[in-house]
Amino acid sequence: MTLPKEQYAAVKQGEGHDATAPVKRVPVPQEPGPGQILVKINWTGLCASDKSLIHDEWAAFGVKMQPSTAGIAGHEGAGSVVAVHPDMKDRWQVGDRAGVKWVVSVCRQCEFCGNGTDELHCPKQVNSGFTAPGTFQEYCMTDGRYATRIPEGVEDEEAGPIMCGGVTAYTACKRSGVRPGQWIVMIGGGGGLGHFGVQYATAMGMRVIAIDGGEEKGKLCKQLGAETYIDFQECKDLAAEVTKITTYGAHAAIVFAASREGYAVAPQMLRPGGIVVAVGLPKDTDVLAGAPPIMLALKRLSIVGSVTGTLKDVEEALDFTARGLVHPILTKGTLADVDKFCKLMSEGKLPGRAVLKVA
Amino acid sequence: MTLPKEQYAAVKQGEGHDATAPVKRVPVPQEPGPGQILVKINWTGLCASDKSLIHDEWAAFGVKMQPSTAGIAGHEGAGSVVAVHPDMKDRWQVGDRAGVKWVVSVCRQCEFCGNGTDELHCPKQVNSGFTAPGTFQEYCMTDGRYATRIPEGVEDEEAGPIMCGGVTAYTACKRSGVRPGQWIVMIGGGGGLGHFGVQYATAMGMRVIAIDGGEEKGKLCKQLGAETYIDFQECKDLAAEVTKITTYGAHAAIVFAASREGYAVAPQMLRPGGIVVAVGLPKDTDVLAGAPPIMLALKRLSIVGSVTGTLKDVEEALDFTARGLVHPILTKGTLADVDKFCKLMSEGKLPGRAVLKVA
Amino acid sequence: MTLPKEQYAAVKQGEGHDATAPVKRVPVPQEPGPGQILVKINWTGLCASDKSLIHDEWAAFGVKMQPSTAGIAGHEGAGSVVAVHPDMKDRWQVGDRAGVKWVVSVCRQCEFCGNGTDELHCPKQVNSGFTAPGTFQEYCMTDGRYATRIPEGVEDEEAGPIMCGGVTAYTACKRSGVRPGQWIVMIGGGGGLGHFGVQYATAMGMRVIAIDGGEEKGKLCKQLGAETYIDFQECKDLAAEVTKITTYGAHAAIVFAASREGYAVAPQMLRPGGIVVAVGLPKDTDVLAGAPPIMLALKRLSIVGSVTGTLKDVEEALDFTARGLVHPILTKGTLADVDKFCKLMSEGKLPGRAVLKVA
Amino acid sequence: MTLPKEQYAAVKQGEGHDATAPVKRVPVPQEPGPGQILVKINWTGLCASDKSLIHDEWAAFGVKMQPSTAGIAGHEGAGSVVAVHPDMKDRWQVGDRAGVKWVVSVCRQCEFCGNGTDELHCPKQVNSGFTAPGTFQEYCMTDGRYATRIPEGVEDEEAGPIMCGGVTAYTACKRSGVRPGQWIVMIGGGGGLGHFGVQYATAMGMRVIAIDGGEEKGKLCKQLGAETYIDFQECKDLAAEVTKITTYGAHAAIVFAASREGYAVAPQMLRPGGIVVAVGLPKDTDVLAGAPPIMLALKRLSIVGSVTGTLKDVEEALDFTARGLVHPILTKGTLADVDKFCKLMSEGKLPGRAVLKVA
Repeated sequence: MTLPKEQYAAVKQGEGHDATAPVKRVPVPQEPGPGQILVKINWTGLCASDKSLIHDEWAAFGVKMQPSTAGIAGHEGAGSVVAVHPDMKDRWQVGDRAGVKWVVSVCRQCEFCGNGTDELHCPKQVNSGFTAPGTFQEYCMTDGRYATRIPEGVEDEEAGPIMCGGVTAYTACKRSGVRPGQWIVMIGGGGGLGHFGVQYATAMGMRVIAIDGGEEKGKLCKQLGAETYIDFQECKDLAAEVTKITTYGAHAAIVFAASREGYAVAPQMLRPGGIVVAVGLPKDTDVLAGAPPIMLALKRLSIVGSVTGTLKDVEEALDFTARGLVHPILTKGTLADVDKFCKLMSEGKLPGRAVLKVA
Repeated sequence: MTLPKEQYAAVKQGEGHDATAPVKRVPVPQEPGPGQILVKINWTGLCASDKSLIHDEWAAFGVKMQPSTAGIAGHEGAGSVVAVHPDMKDRWQVGDRAGVKWVVSVCRQCEFCGNGTDELHCPKQVNSGFTAPGTFQEYCMTDGRYATRIPEGVEDEEAGPIMCGGVTAYTACKRSGVRPGQWIVMIGGGGGLGHFGVQYATAMGMRVIAIDGGEEKGKLCKQLGAETYIDFQECKDLAAEVTKITTYGAHAAIVFAASREGYAVAPQMLRPGGIVVAVGLPKDTDVLAGAPPIMLALKRLSIVGSVTGTLKDVEEALDFTARGLVHPILTKGTLADVDKFCKLMSEGKLPGRAVLKVA
Repeated sequence: MTLPKEQYAAVKQGEGHDATAPVKRVPVPQEPGPGQILVKINWTGLCASDKSLIHDEWAAFGVKMQPSTAGIAGHEGAGSVVAVHPDMKDRWQVGDRAGVKWVVSVCRQCEFCGNGTDELHCPKQVNSGFTAPGTFQEYCMTDGRYATRIPEGVEDEEAGPIMCGGVTAYTACKRSGVRPGQWIVMIGGGGGLGHFGVQYATAMGMRVIAIDGGEEKGKLCKQLGAETYIDFQECKDLAAEVTKITTYGAHAAIVFAASREGYAVAPQMLRPGGIVVAVGLPKDTDVLAGAPPIMLALKRLSIVGSVTGTLKDVEEALDFTARGLVHPILTKGTLADVDKFCKLMSEGKLPGRAVLKVA
Repeated sequence: MTLPKEQYAAVKQGEGHDATAPVKRVPVPQEPGPGQILVKINWTGLCASDKSLIHDEWAAFGVKMQPSTAGIAGHEGAGSVVAVHPDMKDRWQVGDRAGVKWVVSVCRQCEFCGNGTDELHCPKQVNSGFTAPGTFQEYCMTDGRYATRIPEGVEDEEAGPIMCGGVTAYTACKRSGVRPGQWIVMIGGGGGLGHFGVQYATAMGMRVIAIDGGEEKGKLCKQLGAETYIDFQECKDLAAEVTKITTYGAHAAIVFAASREGYAVAPQMLRPGGIVVAVGLPKDTDVLAGAPPIMLALKRLSIVGSVTGTLKDVEEALDFTARGLVHPILTKGTLADVDKFCKLMSEGKLPGRAVLKVA
């Protein structure tokens, strides 16, 4: 196969709040190096993290897109393999379907990834759209040892958003420790991450209370499996309402919403021994996921962080879709829609998960 | 045995910061009711919680000594049984050594205590010195089903402080999940709780870094088993220092100090997957045990609360002392010293654990 | 309410294989003692353990019905409260629906039940139909602190079999540690216990492979949620078949069948790290739940026992039925059918769970 | 550095019970391939598994030394790096101290090793002295990504036996789940594996009961930390004795002895919820690690297998020695002593762990 020399990509321009990501012509990466494969991206998700990175929203935490990205964000890519380094030929064939994730590669030698614990903290990890060019381009070079095989029964347009949004919701559900038959609250259950959370939790046998704003979100949450929906625009006391439904408080609450209010109310909804899972990442530096020590200690609560998932977690997350149990609600566009979709997202007006047709 | 009609007790007087607890003559509780035994208190510990309750320091959280205490605080009592209700005779004999704890009795029927989970959240629990008269009196009536049998090899003056201080440190160590050979940081390691923590953690095979102020505390911590001591009065960057010692950060940190600074620095000392255990209870309502969501999520930290221990935990905690592995450092006084000792405690000048000779 | 003086009960007669349990007139227990309530049994399940106890099948293990039962077996009773000791009036009212289980009462003081671990090993426990008269009688005296409240939405005829059969299958599923999306094998999935197991596992998000004999059982298992059914009468190599379906072997297998073959094949079906849960209790003393050490070690398998459930487990198990997720398949009869049903059970011809109309 | 062309090695000769492993001249492996390093073995442990492999003791289980070993057993090697493939130069330097283990390399891509679970079940793993030439030779080629760095404070003669014997005992202790202050029984506590187990368990805060034969073993066990020693040559009822010491039975028992009797008695020594850890591997195919289902179920015991450890486990195991807490008792010899030591081992006459001076 002969690769074109140039391709379309959405490329970051400017800094801060006013930055944009217009479509440009850029060179196609050629010749996979050792361990690499080249993936032709069919669809890519547009994650809230892409928005935050393009607009430097986390600069105060020292988290900014690196020059090594060439300005190309995106970490929810799905497509087909078009070139394979010889040393990956036992693993990948041209034509195989492959997914590109937030973690592009890990060292497989360090304390965290080579040693039986967890590769997500590999200090040498490369990240798509953060330290390496991402999936907002037609041809994306990636590590063949860490790319994800997309199983039959999962469309590319679904697989993309599962690479980050889906697996993030799934691992947050696992991290909650909630057992089948127990109560979990999804704060922001109608959003891009939350609507995945509602579905995974339901498929895992949990009883779901979704919290979000407006009737439409309520309809969506219930249709996806939530037993109860609480509209925060209507309910005066969320903690009291959850306690009424669950007798002693919920077993866990996942904060998908990147909001001050979500983090403030979450621990108040829990029974003794309950768990808050922190997922949504507010840009304000003074928002804490936490609780007064006296409340944390007397009720022996836990507040835990969760982020994306391992290679194995992603395989598990995809498997739920392959089995027909979890499906993203998609708002579809093209590479040219990055800025428009980021704006809608900021306004909380983008239903479900944004996904862009690329190649 | 004939019981006296009157006894000495330290009784709360006044409200708030200026409250005191002078010794007075009060009636001796007579005739144990169903399930009860009367314990002649030999020694009682004086816990920082007693100080906080006597001075209404947690009033802003809705936590105040109840009238049902008759103003008598104290929940670390050790002594001998002097009267037994007939229905407890298969369990207790006059002369048996018994300990009185923060939790005096539980309902043994509710979701939490009767149902195989954990009695510490029984909504009907009675608490010594908080909802029932405590151990700052010569004769203390208590629930025979929940009183602790003091094993051979443990002196009353040691057993008292273990009833709350010891078991609190012990369960915090368990809650940390730190395995033998891994690193734990004790913030406030030289204090009344912390010096227990250093000993339990050492006996559990953990590697201990103690943080506290001054040379003397350092000497104490090392003598009790700490591998390293960091003097916060000297060290400019505690997190950097801990990271230097532990390569990736510690596996857990227990915040024994009821201080804003302790809670702020704790999550910064941890490796990915690390755990902060919240034990110290500051009186300021704006101190949170927590971390920015982006830090909590990216490093997948946990922040968990821990408080006192179950009946079983107390037995385990005592067993370490019976086996010669853990011994409180004691500052001894009498019931007349409550106010003096509270003052020293507030000033951080009371070495180890305060214990008062009662009867 | 005036209680009759006499009632009908199925009473054990004879010893060993030829023993029977014909219906007789026996006295009605009068006047609940402290902590007791009297339950009018509406329906009682007939468990395989009842059959084993009536026919002294476990005598070789030292397990025999005690004289204190007055020959009345049965431990899956559901009905209504007809008398309450005054000290239980805050908990039970005449007319409340109540369930009687294998464990009738525990001491709430010992190492196991009073101490936050697990009451199922209380050495002073009383067992229905084993050390106390069981539920094969119209009026059954039981401990009000350990009787189970039957929730709305669960019929008595369903509640009975859940008291032991249902909760046993449920706790075995929990003990398997299988997570949603992972594979579990139910050996004997079409039987009285197994058909509960298939339903609970499905409701817990597991992927179920049921093994049993014959087409009819296959139809049943699939209808209850099994993804795959393997007929052991047809399949030559069960382990190979399970491995083919699951790639590396299943994550766990529960042996519901009380059979030598089931225990022999179970560990061979598992992936590394897999778990065998032992539930079925063969009468032959030379059947071991186990594996050659070299296999157990190299694959790091676990073989674990599971039996009935705690008070809390039973509440959870009932909740699945109240929510419409789990329903026993019932073969109905009356007290007069004990012997007939035991015979059918021995021949493997009793579909689902046997339940007897009592009062 | 110029490598010699020939070296000494102990090479398997013959089959079955009469096989031997005399010292011969064999070629030195030259030129490390990609990912490889060449280690000059200073000392190698002689494990009971080496004995079993040389004498085909596990042939009945399908476990035999492969031709790819060139007849060279051994998997507890420690020495210095003498050659490094260029692609390993960021990791290893000539002169670095390195250890060679049972697992020589893993694929880092499969379900088990690449996916965040556990590399010990990698189906493509290479094993020292089983599928690759082992450490009974002067120069051993090994995988640089999986070789172990030997820390300061650990001698080569200690590091060797820790590579397998030490880490096996250590992971068995971890697998037992026994918490500090709880009881563990070491069956075969005075042997090559067991004497490591006694030390690790002690350093982990467990209370150790060691069982073995003879006074000398008793002296050794106690000196290494065992609280109690039971001589099986003297004690008539081991289970009763353990129960007497521990009230309800021990929390766990590790079977280090490859004996029928050890596996038979282990489950009888345990309290409800207790765990048997299977480590010793008998050659007889009819020895099961197991228990009658009725015993396993009623006491809810677990019987679990444990084998060697991950790369990370080995690092942890070495760290205990570097910290001065665990030291092997060594019987020293040279390569020429393989047969003599195997014989002593078979007769149970080899004290501690056998270690051979190689280069």
